[in-house]
Order: sequence, then structure tokens, then C-alpha cells
Amino acid sequence: MSNSIEVILSPALRDLYDLRGKVVVVIDVFRATTTMCAALHNGAKNVIPVMHLEDAQEYQSRGYLLGGERNGIKMPGFDFGNSPKEYTAEKIKDRDVVLTTTNGTKAVSLSEDADTILIGAFVNMSSVVSYLSECGKDVVLFCAGWKNRANMEDSLYAGYVVNHLKDTHSTNCDSAILVSHWAEDSSLSDVELLQKGSHAQRFKKLSVTDLEYCLERDIHPVLPILVDNKLIDRNQSSKSG
Amino acid sequence: MSNSIEVILSPALRDLYDLRGKVVVVIDVFRATTTMCAALHNGAKNVIPVMHLEDAQEYQSRGYLLGGERNGIKMPGFDFGNSPKEYTAEKIKDRDVVLTTTNGTKAVSLSEDADTILIGAFVNMSSVVSYLSECGKDVVLFCAGWKNRANMEDSLYAGYVVNHLKDTHSTNCDSAILVSHWAEDSSLSDVELLQKGSHAQRFKKLSVTDLEYCLERDIHPVLPILVDNKLIDRNQSSKSG
Repeated sequence: MSNSIEVILSPALRDLYDLRGKVVVVIDVFRATTTMCAALHNGAKNVIPVMHLEDAQEYQSRGYLLGGERNGIKMPGFDFGNSPKEYTAEKIKDRDVVLTTTNGTKAVSLSEDADTILIGAFVNMSSVVSYLSECGKDVVLFCAGWKNRANMEDSLYAGYVVNHLKDTHSTNCDSAILVSHWAEDSSLSDVELLQKGSHAQRFKKLSVTDLEYCLERDIHPVLPILVDNKLIDRNQSSKSG
Repeated sequence: MSNSIEVILSPALRDLYDLRGKVVVVIDVFRATTTMCAALHNGAKNVIPVMHLEDAQEYQSRGYLLGGERNGIKMPGFDFGNSPKEYTAEKIKDRDVVLTTTNGTKAVSLSEDADTILIGAFVNMSSVVSYLSECGKDVVLFCAGWKNRANMEDSLYAGYVVNHLKDTHSTNCDSAILVSHWAEDSSLSDVELLQKGSHAQRFKKLSVTDLEYCLERDIHPVLPILVDNKLIDRNQSSKSG
């Protein structure tokens, strides 16, 4: 008998789902979860996702590098914004990084009931799929969306993951079925699909190179997992452990 | 310059949308909005959508016919359940009907800020599209969903309507873009699409004939519009008016 898979399209729908005993994958493709993967892959020791600005600044005062955004914009005093390209090995190797963003870190915080919390993005999709297909547990894909609205990029990613798990996970969650069909049926490339909605203000604000970066498959083959409120790369720790 | 169109995937997301000055179409394909169309087309004078059970029973005590469900099941003392097939001309011609359902009547109630509230289903899709394409106003398609979760049938309907309004209404709402792509790309029939998710418990509970009824195009070419908390057929009233 296969395990179940569900999709949460927006943090505003979080309370409708029971996360206990399940593996939750938090998805914020543009750009928080992509950035988390980039930071870990480029050698950050930990990435600490923090919901509130004040808590993030408190970490910074204790020597952490501080990154993130509010409404897509880097905050005064931050070491980094939310572009994954800023998190180079040169700047973050062996450092602790604290990250606070409009949507992504909030979704992590809302997932605390889960058995396991992972971070998913196109840049580490195969790592995520590989873990989920072998985990033997029920899975919830949690799209961070944009200010509580569903968004296209996180939904599309969720659709791909659902479709990759057809052999191990079945669903009676309509949101999962919807994104699965969408990801399956489209004849367009990801960029074409997402740019079809390019009059959306958010896409205009994203640099084209950031957009392309965030849609690259598997360039950061890490598996960020939350342990004691810190994200570490599970692939790395299981190799060394 | 074209007007805007947005899609609310679930009542839990209602507060993210400003409905003022806009035309809202409430969608609950299985089965509340289909039933409202059937009742008006079969000659009911008014259909009064009511959120709370007690209010509905109060209407009944004043001579209204009472229909609806909770969790898909007809309530004790009700004259009708929520199957559109029950609302025959023989039973409801020239009568006032009050209807209370799990999702649909709640969505109507949550739309009160709107300029105009319409009722949409496959059975009156062309009437809805025709009105919207000529209204010259911003449009919000409000999917009633199932207990605050998004559902497939309402999302699919919303996608078709968005696609029919491409000449008059543009969007930067990701939910609208998502359902539009989905409705556009699929090579499956509506029944196939929705039955692909047929292991979902809700579909099992629906009789197959109800399911097919609710997916029939334009068999009830009415345009239910809310006036003084009552739904009347705008097509009929503009003919006679």
C-alpha cells in the first residue's frame, strides 16, 4: 500500500492539513528555498530560517551572517539579500547564516508539527524526490506562495514532485491532483509557462538571471533538513556520519 | 484597456482579495450552484442562499421550501437535499426556496462586498460568460471548494471561464493563470479529468448521474444574480423588465 501525498497551495490553508508524522517539503522557488540550497551547497555550516526580523537581527549581533528580504527587497544592515547568486563560497564557507524572507521562512515555521522538514527547489529537485521516494512516509508539499496567495512557480514544482512519486505515493488531495495535471499536460518549458504570466509584477521585479537560476535543475544537489531549528545538508551529514 | 480577472481558490483565501466594485461569480459545481441554476430554471420564484442552518429553518417556518445539505447529506426536516435533480418544476414552480449548503452558500455570504454577485456552474456557463464579457467590470471567480480546500471541479470551471474572457479580461493573479493553463492544456474530457481523482472520497459519494448532470453545458441557461439577499434569474427579469 502506498503512502499519501498532499499539496498545500498557500500558508493560509496550512491549518486544513495534519502534518504530524509526515515529511513536509517547504517550497519557495523564487527565491528563499533556492537560496537555502545555494548557501548550503556553497559551504555554509548551517542556515537558520527565522520568521521575525527582530529575531534575525539578534542572531546577527551574535556573529551570524544575515540574509533575506521583505517584499522582495534587501533590508538595511543585512549582509545579503535573497538572491541565491549572492551566497558564494567565498563569502559563506563555514559560516552560519540566518535567513528571513516574506514567505519561505514563515512556511518553515508553520511546519513545526511535521516529523521531518525538508527544503525543496528546482536546484535540488532530484535530491528531494530521491529522499521522498524512499522515506516510506506520508508527504506534504507546502508551497510558500506569495503573501498567502498561491503562486505558479511553487505549484508547478509541487506538480513535478507529485508526478515523480507516482509509484510510491497516491493522493486524494484535489490540490495535488490539480498541480499534477498541470505539470503533466503542459507542452511549454518552465520558463515559458512562468513567463506567460510575466505581466505579473513579481516577475518584472526579478532579474532574468535570477529567474533562470531558480529554474535550473539540480545545480545544488543538497537536501536541507531542519535539525534543532537549523538547516543542514542531510546528504553531506549522512556521508560523513 | 481590459478589465482584470482573478480567481479565489478557496473561501480561506477570500480576505486576500478586494471585491469592492467587482462582479463576483460564486462557483460550487458539486452541487450548490448547479442546484441554484436548476431551481431557478425550473420556475422557482427566488432562491435564498443562507449560511446558517437555524436561519434556513426560520425561513421554512414561514412557508419557504427548504433544501440543502451538511457534509453532502440531506438534513432531517428538509424538503430537498442538494441534488439538482430533485428541484423539478412540479415541486418548485412559483415557490420560494431557501438553500443552505456546506460550502456554496458560505461563499455567497463572504462575497457581500462585491458590486454584483452571480452564480456560476457548467449548466449555465454560456450565460455567465456572456454577461461577464459585456459587463465592463473587474471580475472575481470565487471557488467554494470543499471545507476550505481548493477542489478540482470548481478550479476547472474557473479555468474555462478565464479562457473564454481572454479578449476582455487580463490577469496577473497566479491562481487565475494556473487554472487557465490547466483547463487549456488538458486533452482529457471533464469527466475523465475529474474521475482521474475518483479515488477521492467525495466523488465516490456523488451518484454518477449527479456528476454527469453537474457537468452538462448550458442545460439551465439562467443567470442567477443576488438582489436583496435573493437569487433571481437576471435573464428572465431583463426580458420581462
